[in-house]
Amino acid sequence: MKELLEKILKEGTVLEEDVLKVDSFLTHQIDPELMSLVGKTFADKYRDKGITKIVTIESSGIAPAVFIGLELGVPVIFARKQKSLTMTTELLTASVYSFTKQTTNNISISTKFLTEHDKVLVVDDFLANGQAALGLIELCQQAGASIEAINIVIEKSFQNGRSLLEEKGYKVDSLARIKSLKNNKVHFVEEEN
Amino acid sequence: MKELLEKILKEGTVLEEDVLKVDSFLTHQIDPELMSLVGKTFADKYRDKGITKIVTIESSGIAPAVFIGLELGVPVIFARKQKSLTMTTELLTASVYSFTKQTTNNISISTKFLTEHDKVLVVDDFLANGQAALGLIELCQQAGASIEAINIVIEKSFQNGRSLLEEKGYKVDSLARIKSLKNNKVHFVEEEN
Repeated sequence: MKELLEKILKEGTVLEEDVLKVDSFLTHQIDPELMSLVGKTFADKYRDKGITKIVTIESSGIAPAVFIGLELGVPVIFARKQKSLTMTTELLTASVYSFTKQTTNNISISTKFLTEHDKVLVVDDFLANGQAALGLIELCQQAGASIEAINIVIEKSFQNGRSLLEEKGYKVDSLARIKSLKNNKVHFVEEEN
Repeated sequence: MKELLEKILKEGTVLEEDVLKVDSFLTHQIDPELMSLVGKTFADKYRDKGITKIVTIESSGIAPAVFIGLELGVPVIFARKQKSLTMTTELLTASVYSFTKQTTNNISISTKFLTEHDKVLVVDDFLANGQAALGLIELCQQAGASIEAINIVIEKSFQNGRSLLEEKGYKVDSLARIKSLKNNKVHFVEEEN
C-alpha cells in the first residue's frame, strides 16, 4: 500500500537492525486516516469471502482491525493479554512467547464470541517471529473457526513469521513488507517498490 | 445517544450492583458501526473547537477514540499501561489507582506527541471513579496541553468520577449515563430517556 510505505519511509525510525519504530502513526500515536485506508484496502480483498469476525490482539492491532470490521460490517474481537475483571465466562487461551521480552504471556478470548461457524480474518500491526499470530490462530482453532487470512500492516520479512504461518497452510497478506533494516534504512521487498 | 442506550439495554449484563459488562460491543468484542456512530456523535460537538489531538488509554478507549480522530482529522494517542520496548524517548508518566484491582499502575505518553500547543479531547470507554481520566489529565497537564472535554462512552453516574472531574473544572461529556444498576437492571439518568 503506497501511502503506508511512504509513511514508513517518512516517519519510521530504525532503532536496531531488527527494530522499526512507528509510534507516530501505529503503535502509540495513531493516524486514523491512514488506518481507515488500511481497513478499506484489506476489506476490498475479502468482501466476497463470507468473513464473519475480525480477530486481533490488544493494543496496536485494534485500530486497523476496527476499520476492516467497519468496512466488512462484522464484529472485531481483541484478545486480551491480561484477564479483565468482567471476563467471567469461559475462555479460549493460548500462550504467546515474546522473543524481544523473553517472556510467555497468556492471551484470551471469551468462548461466546467465536464458534465453528465463524470465518475469521486475523489482524495484527506487526509480523516478526509470528508468535502473536500463532497464538491468535490457536484461539480460532480452539473455537473451531476457520481462518481466511492473516492480515498484517507491517511485515518484517527478514524474520521467520511468514514462513512459520505459511508452513501451517495460512495465507499471509501484508500491506508493507520490509526486506531489511540494515544501515538504519528501511528496504522494502521488491514487489512493492 | 439513543443507539448506545438501546445496545446497553439489549446486550449489557449487570454483574454486581456496580459492574456493567459490555464485552459484546465495547470492551472485548467491538461493534465497529456503533463505535463509528459514537465517533461522529462526539466529533459533531467539537468540530469548531480547534481540537488537535485525541488522548485515550489502552485498550477499550482506542476504538471510540480513532473514530473521533478520523472525523476531526486529528491524531489519536493512546497512553500505555506498560512501557513498550520502542518507547525510548522521554515520557510523560502518571500513576492510576484501580479501585477494583486495588493496584497502582503507571501510564505513559511520549513527550514528543503532546505539547503546550495542543488542545485535547480525552476519551475513555468508562467513567467510574475517574482515576484513569485523572491520569490522562495529568499527562496533558505535564505537556502543558489544554483539555476541551472528557468524552466518555458509558458513565456510571452513581460513582464519583464526574464530580471529581467537574470539581477540577473539566467538562464531562458522556453518551450514556447510568443512574443505577440495582436489581440487575440498568437505569439511565433521566435526561436521556
